[in-house]
Order: sequence, then C-alpha cells, then structure tokens
Amino acid sequence: MAADSPLEGLRPLFYPRSIAVVGASNNPFKLGFQSLLAVKSAGFEGPIYPINPHSEEPIQELEAYPSLKDIPGQVDLVVYAIPDTMVLPAVHEAAAKGARGGVIFAGGFREAGPEGVKLQEELVAVADSVNMRLIGPNCIGMLNARGKVNATFAAPLSWLPSGGFSMVSQSGGVGTAVLSLMADELVGASKFVSIGNRANVEFADLLEYLAEDPDTNVVGLFMEGVDDARRFLTAARRCARVKPVVICSAGYTEKAARTSLSHTGSVASSESVYKGAFHQAGIIRTSGVQDLVCTGKALEMAGHLGGNGVFMATHTAGPAIVIAEILEKAGVRIPSLSPEVSASIASFIPTHAHPENPLDMFAHAWTDTSLYLRSTDVALAQEDIHCAVAVFASGMGAGPAFPAAEYAGIGRKHGKPVFLCLMGPTALNQEMAAAQTAGVCAYNTPEKLAQALAHLTHWAQARAERE
Amino acid sequence: MAADSPLEGLRPLFYPRSIAVVGASNNPFKLGFQSLLAVKSAGFEGPIYPINPHSEEPIQELEAYPSLKDIPGQVDLVVYAIPDTMVLPAVHEAAAKGARGGVIFAGGFREAGPEGVKLQEELVAVADSVNMRLIGPNCIGMLNARGKVNATFAAPLSWLPSGGFSMVSQSGGVGTAVLSLMADELVGASKFVSIGNRANVEFADLLEYLAEDPDTNVVGLFMEGVDDARRFLTAARRCARVKPVVICSAGYTEKAARTSLSHTGSVASSESVYKGAFHQAGIIRTSGVQDLVCTGKALEMAGHLGGNGVFMATHTAGPAIVIAEILEKAGVRIPSLSPEVSASIASFIPTHAHPENPLDMFAHAWTDTSLYLRSTDVALAQEDIHCAVAVFASGMGAGPAFPAAEYAGIGRKHGKPVFLCLMGPTALNQEMAAAQTAGVCAYNTPEKLAQALAHLTHWAQARAERE
Repeated sequence: MAADSPLEGLRPLFYPRSIAVVGASNNPFKLGFQSLLAVKSAGFEGPIYPINPHSEEPIQELEAYPSLKDIPGQVDLVVYAIPDTMVLPAVHEAAAKGARGGVIFAGGFREAGPEGVKLQEELVAVADSVNMRLIGPNCIGMLNARGKVNATFAAPLSWLPSGGFSMVSQSGGVGTAVLSLMADELVGASKFVSIGNRANVEFADLLEYLAEDPDTNVVGLFMEGVDDARRFLTAARRCARVKPVVICSAGYTEKAARTSLSHTGSVASSESVYKGAFHQAGIIRTSGVQDLVCTGKALEMAGHLGGNGVFMATHTAGPAIVIAEILEKAGVRIPSLSPEVSASIASFIPTHAHPENPLDMFAHAWTDTSLYLRSTDVALAQEDIHCAVAVFASGMGAGPAFPAAEYAGIGRKHGKPVFLCLMGPTALNQEMAAAQTAGVCAYNTPEKLAQALAHLTHWAQARAERE
Repeated sequence: MAADSPLEGLRPLFYPRSIAVVGASNNPFKLGFQSLLAVKSAGFEGPIYPINPHSEEPIQELEAYPSLKDIPGQVDLVVYAIPDTMVLPAVHEAAAKGARGGVIFAGGFREAGPEGVKLQEELVAVADSVNMRLIGPNCIGMLNARGKVNATFAAPLSWLPSGGFSMVSQSGGVGTAVLSLMADELVGASKFVSIGNRANVEFADLLEYLAEDPDTNVVGLFMEGVDDARRFLTAARRCARVKPVVICSAGYTEKAARTSLSHTGSVASSESVYKGAFHQAGIIRTSGVQDLVCTGKALEMAGHLGGNGVFMATHTAGPAIVIAEILEKAGVRIPSLSPEVSASIASFIPTHAHPENPLDMFAHAWTDTSLYLRSTDVALAQEDIHCAVAVFASGMGAGPAFPAAEYAGIGRKHGKPVFLCLMGPTALNQEMAAAQTAGVCAYNTPEKLAQALAHLTHWAQARAERE
C-alpha cells in the first residue's frame, strides 16, 4: 500500500503508536488536565507522554517531559492542549520530532480575521512539509472508539459503545450533541472527528479514509459549508457507493449563513443547490441531528433491507398509527397480509382483533408477549414484507418486558431486520440497551423509528436501482 | 357552583376523597397489584380500599373488603383492575354505593365488535343514571400529579415532577410515550388522562374542565379521530382562548386510518380538513409526540412572549446555525443589534468576534461563561428582542457549567423568557434539571429548542392578533 493511500495517510491520527499531550497538567481546571485524562481514560495501549516545560514531577502519574524533543521514543500523534499563540512553535517541534498527526483545540486561526488566516497558513506549511496531518484548529478533537483513542478533552466520551458509526462534524457543538445522542440511542461509535478549521484534513480526506476503513459501516456528516464542493461531492459519491453516508447540513438562511461565515470561514450556499447535489451523490439527507443519529443507528444495526414492505404489530394503536402515517407519506408500504398469513394469524390472536397489517392485538399482546413472536414469524415469511416493527409500552420495571432476544432471533431466521418502538423514559433504558444488544433496533418514540426506517428504505431502494 | 359545571362534574375523578381498587391483589403479576401500588405510591392522602372477594387478609398492608358495598365510608373513585366480563357488575355495585368516578383499564368494549359496543352502552347507561363519570374502558388510566392521584397501573409515574402541563391522549401507548418524554424533558405534570373508548368522558368534557382548572397552564392532546367534531372544536376553541392547547394528531393515511378504526372505534378524517379546523380553533399543531412535549414545556415555562424577536449567544456556531435556520424558516426574527447594543457588546467580547445576532463568542465564552450573562443583559434591553437563547456544550461534569441561575435572573429582570440549548447526554441531565429549576427552559438538541420556540412565537402572535 502506498504511503499516501487514504488508509495510510490518516493512520497516525486514528491508530497512533504513541500520543503526546502538549500542555498536560495536574491542575483540573486546565484544558491540559482534561485532555490528558481523556487520552488515559480511553485505555490507550501505547506510550502516553505528558509535555509541560514547567513540570518536573509526573503528571497524572505519568513521566512528564519539558518538550517533545525530550521524549525518548517515537511520537505519532500530538494533542495540543495549549493557547493559540503557543501552537505554531509546538507544531515546529513536533515536525522536527517526526510526529505524523496532530489535534489542535485552540481557536484564533482562520475564523479570527486576517492575522488568524496567516497563522493557519504558516501552520499548514509546516505540517505539509513533513506530511503531518492536523485535525483542527478550533475543534473538540477526535475519537477512535475501536482503537482506544480519545483525543478530545472529555473523558466521558471514552465510554461510548464501540461500533461501526463514524461521524465527521464541522461544528464542535453539534459534535457534542451527536455524541450525546449516540450515548442516549446506544449507537456504536467507530471514528468521530470534529474538523473545525480544517488546516489540512478536509471532509473529502475523511470520506476517502472512511470509505476504505473496515471498522466503519456508516458515515455521518454535519456540514455548514465546504471550500471545495466538487472534491467533497466526488469523495461523498465514492463513499456512498460502498457504505451509507448520512448528512445533516445547515446554514442556508440569512442569519444562519452569516453565523457560519463568522465561524469556520466557510460560505454556505443555497439550500436547493446542495439538496440536489447531495441527492445526486447518493447521500441521505436528514432533518436534524436527532434524525441523523437515529438513521445512523438503523443503517448500522439493520443492514440490508430487501424492499419497502413493513409488517407492524402492536398492543396499542396510537403509536402504530403515527408510524404508519409517516411511512405511508414517505412511500414505504405496509402490505396487506396474504390470505394464508392472515388466516394463520387469525388462529391465535384475540377473537375481536383483525388479522391485518398493521396488526393490533390489544392489551392481550402486552400480557402475552408471545403473540408478537408468532405473528412476526408468520408475517416475515410473506414475500413482499421485508422487515418488522413491534410497538410496545414499557412496563417500567413493574409490567412485562418485551421478548427482544426471541424477536431478534425471528428476524435472523428470516434474514429480515426487526425494529422496536419501546415507549419508556430514558432513565429506564436498560430495557432499550437489552433489546439492542440482542440485535433489535429500538427507539423510544414512534417518529424516530418511522423517520429512520423511511430513510433506510429509501437508501435500500436507491442501492437496488444502482445495481 | 352548579353540580354539573365542568370543574364540579369531573372533581370526583381528579380530586377524589377516597379511592377503591377493585381486583386489588398481593400477587405482583396481577394488574390489581400494580394498580393498587400505583395508587399508594402517589401518596394519596384519603382512604384507599382494596376490593377482592377472595381475600380475607390485608392487601399491600391495607384492610381489604370483599365488595364495594362492604366499605364502611363513602367511595368517590373506583379503579377497575379486572377483566372485561367482570366490569359491568362491578360498575352496578359502584353506582349503588354512590361512587361518582371510575377508571376502567380492560379492553373488550366498543373497539371489540358488536357485542363490545352493546356492553359499553350498558356501562354508560348505568353510569349516566347516577351521574358517574368513567375514564376508559380500554385505557391506561389517569393521573393528577398535584392531587397525588395515580389511577394508572405504573407506580413510577408517581414521581413525575408536578407542574402545569395537562395531557389527554386517546392512545395509551402514545400516552406512555408522552409521559416518558415528560420525564426526560422535565416537564411538570398536572393532569394526565388516557381516555380510551370514551364511555362518557370525551375530549370535549376534558377540554371544558382543563380550561377552568387553575392547576393547568397548558393542555396537550393526542387524537386519532373524534366522534363529535363540532363539539370538540367548540370546546378546544374556548379552551385555547384562555390557555394554549397543543395537539399531535394522526391517522390520515390509509393504513393509519384503518388501524385507528379498529382501535377505539373512531373514523379519522382527511388531514387537510383537520389542519384547517385546528388552526381556526387556535390550536397549536405539532409534528409529533416529541414536538408536543417540547412545545408544551416552552409554553409552560416561558409563558408570555412579547413578540417574535430572538437574541442568540453561543460559543459554538453549528447548533446556532441549525436553530437560526429553523427559526427563520418559521418566520421568527433574529433582529440585527442596534448600534448602541452592538458597541456595548463589542467592548467585552473577544476581539475577533463580531458583535452581531446570533452572537458567536467562540471558546472564550465556554471558559468565561459571564460573557453569556453580559451579552444577554445588554441585548434583552433592545426593544425588538423578546427572548434569548444560549447555546452551550455540556462540560460533561469535567468542564465548565452554564450559569443557569444568573441567566434566568437576567430574563426575569427584563421580563423576557430565556432558553438554553445544552448539548449533553441524558445520563448527565442533572445539569438540565438544575437549569430548569432555575427557570431556564432547556433542551438537549438545537432542533427541539428551535421548533418549540417557533410554536411559542406563533402562539404569542395569534394571541396578540385576537386581542
């Protein structure tokens, strides 16, 4: 593999052999404390080098060094937890030391007027001269959950479940929102990158990397604007051919665009232009960060969908009606049951229930949850039904639990994904965690489930049309 | 006050002096166990009477009675935790005992074909003959958080925070979703009613009651269809004149409508007809249950909004861009700052920040959170700015905390509501709880905040036009 292939080029960022934290501190009110804590808390297995010219004692129980050049071994990744004015000299030092990757949190560069632009240009010149890739400046850093790398300044992010969803966010704030929703929705994380001012790592570079990354199944993007739209769209189209790319974008109205401009130095374009371009590139466009995360979960967990027919079983009509309406408006079908399937289901559901799709089995199915398993097993055998949805109100620890493991088993038996709308407070989401661990893609509102399933269906249809 | 005024007519349901639970049990796998536990756990202050013909021992440590007629005192509210076939005789007994309210969980009535329709008619005849009001059948019951009444079968609902949001849901499942989201969003509950088959308590009855209820500030509705649309709309219009009414409705597409029909016996009408009628009646129509709960929170917490101008301050542009875009599309203004306000803000924000609206103060404001307070204090003095939004990424327990109490104080000083988009996982929502306790209306995603604020603004505008 050539040294500048996408996987090789960004490897020092995502799979470093060693990490140095410049500005590391024992003072918990310093960014350098939180940053080193984050690196340590992820369980990184290589050497970690705290750098602080003023410390001769260990920092957070690790041997500390006055500067990068004093480190005895090789340094792959340098985390710069220092103010803007100190960054350029430190990057020079890292270049001399042979570091290949860097993460710069500080603002005060391209977003901060002419002087900042100049400073960022100098930074890029140094980095490019030694083939060093920089995340930021003006960002919250990056994570690789599978590689035990937490190069942010938030240790709690180390406990995100590991999985196949990778996210690139132009905004650190939206990045925080996405990571928080990923924790709430129990979406397994692969890579996360807050790209900030994009010194020399752009959306396109990361799309090229993530397209080839075997640990990434789904790519999520939050974008406010892009410098080289042609290169971005080319990279996105290529990535979307091999794995789903989900986007949330903003900045198309007047005040929104102005905020974007004063932010990371990008000018947003008209919404309709981007909308068309995203569609052309095969990118799934979501309505917001929650939709992005919920759709990412469906794509990551449910995998391939053979068509657009859904079977839905419930003990409570309301949420099923909400789901059915969103699905029907999005062109997702809820096929009528064949006479055989209908007759089979009629043989075991309550006498006053109708053997139709959606199937309402009333409170009987809440007390006898096996009715979900039996009906779904029969319905998934029908050819024009490609996945199943169960709607269930949590017993909140006192009432019955949904039989998630058996339900997931029925999905696997038929090779068709299964979904669960499990209504209950997040405070009790052990129940959702159990369902997802079993392989059921679960949501706590009907809208989240329906919108995600609609996106998943459209994605499967678009892929089928391409093939 | 006449005996049949709305407040008097439903008083035995919401403020009973005593409660009997028919079917009460010591067996935790019985509905009658969970139901009695729920009544007890709410801290109800009057007598509670477990009824079970087969028990001579105390039930859950309370003296039990073989039947309602054996109770020594008066019974106001009877909770029927028994199967469908046993309900009619029990309601006869309750009528003889002089009970004035009842909650019936069991299905098997109007939704269950001709025999069920007949059974429900008999039930209504008995209840009407003695002026007894019945919630259900085919429902999950009702709550009055302020009156310490939990007539559901879920004890955890007793710990919902108490407040001014009352909710009427046709669907028990959507009711569960709404209550769960209320717990997540920390919305204070007043009344909750799952009306199910609506034996003799309809949407309109509850709207008439809630319009007059001094403990209710905001009314939420989930509706799949309605029998007497004219009466509903009249009651809704009257209620919306005195307090906001927020609705989520569904069942307008083919499969959705069919599910609704087989459910509580209602036929849904065309979406456009309802949409127009809701608008005419002054009802706020939301896009789903999450939007319903988030908008209910804004209406309950923020109260009156003097106009449609918003000031927004952030340390991270992305979420502010998302919010600005939703607001601008909804016709909510983000006014330019006056020269005086702009100059004043310029005097203390970082030099490379622009003193505009939205105001991006970069990471400086994350470390020096007083910048939010100073800028908001100055901006809220501007006449065409009617509320403030702060965007802040949670430090996740390690970084800085948003100064919610001081921020709320600035809002109160200017008599203008303040909002917070606090991005962080629900697992750490002590931070959101603290903000809301201080009087800041907080959300964990930009979309939730923006959509709720757009609804609140439209409501204030409609009210201003009426006046």
